[in-house]
Amino acid sequence: MPESPSKDSDDGVRPGEITVSLPDRFEAGIYFIGRIRTPWTRREDCPHNARDSDALCSIEVDPRWVAALAGVETCSHLVVLYWMDQSRRDLAVQVPRHYGEGRGTFALRSPARPNPIAMSVVALKEVRGCSLSVTGLDCLDGTALIDIKPYFASVDCVPDAVVGWHRDRK
Amino acid sequence: MPESPSKDSDDGVRPGEITVSLPDRFEAGIYFIGRIRTPWTRREDCPHNARDSDALCSIEVDPRWVAALAGVETCSHLVVLYWMDQSRRDLAVQVPRHYGEGRGTFALRSPARPNPIAMSVVALKEVRGCSLSVTGLDCLDGTALIDIKPYFASVDCVPDAVVGWHRDRK
Repeated sequence: MPESPSKDSDDGVRPGEITVSLPDRFEAGIYFIGRIRTPWTRREDCPHNARDSDALCSIEVDPRWVAALAGVETCSHLVVLYWMDQSRRDLAVQVPRHYGEGRGTFALRSPARPNPIAMSVVALKEVRGCSLSVTGLDCLDGTALIDIKPYFASVDCVPDAVVGWHRDRK
Repeated sequence: MPESPSKDSDDGVRPGEITVSLPDRFEAGIYFIGRIRTPWTRREDCPHNARDSDALCSIEVDPRWVAALAGVETCSHLVVLYWMDQSRRDLAVQVPRHYGEGRGTFALRSPARPNPIAMSVVALKEVRGCSLSVTGLDCLDGTALIDIKPYFASVDCVPDAVVGWHRDRK
């Protein structure tokens, strides 16, 4: 655990982006519970949208937690949380390259956010020991895993949800 | 930020539950970025399923992050991540009271997990300054907020997802 908040990454700030000063200290701590293996080793190779790719990825859970996987094999889909450690944490407004317009961090799925936790819904293909084969990920090889949850359509699925700025973009 | 992992809560371990020894140190740190206000001040009062309740809750974002909300008002639904700080972090197998059978932590949505991050999909009703009115939360009043994301049906919605153990339970 870093003793104090890490320095920002080397990523520059683009025109139109807004940074804020971060708090002096963290208020809670994260354990890494495994690693995600994907075919992508450079950010520019990652699929822009996880559903654009049917690449099989694997989630390697730390053997310490093997007992916590009991029952996971009965799930068709999982919510996976992982830690995007290469991202700036101080951006409040971002200008994503592919949109070219400033948006608030909380209106974006960008990895740059105060707590760089990404959430993906994945389809589970196989469980073998501590290793889960899944599709639906778009992160870099070696990304740190922080949680796995069962996906319940009853609470997690909203077919008619709308992200207005995205629907209306030119 | 605690200097070292916190002690377990006073919650007992039930027969059939399995604990693991936690790592010696955290590997990443979390900023709390706001607080969630709900009508529930005791765990036993929280709705068991967030969709069972249409209670209006509010997400109070730290003013430091107000610029990060730009565009959020165009979203019908949001993914909200929050920190369940009253939960044990060392349970690998749990026996939830309402199921009475042991299940792996990663097959459950229980707040007790190595990283006690809860994920809820909420319906956004109104944004006023740093305050978001939403439905779909089931957490205690005062819970720490750690992230807000736009909900994209294209990647987050899986209508036919199945949690086999839950579907087949007696």
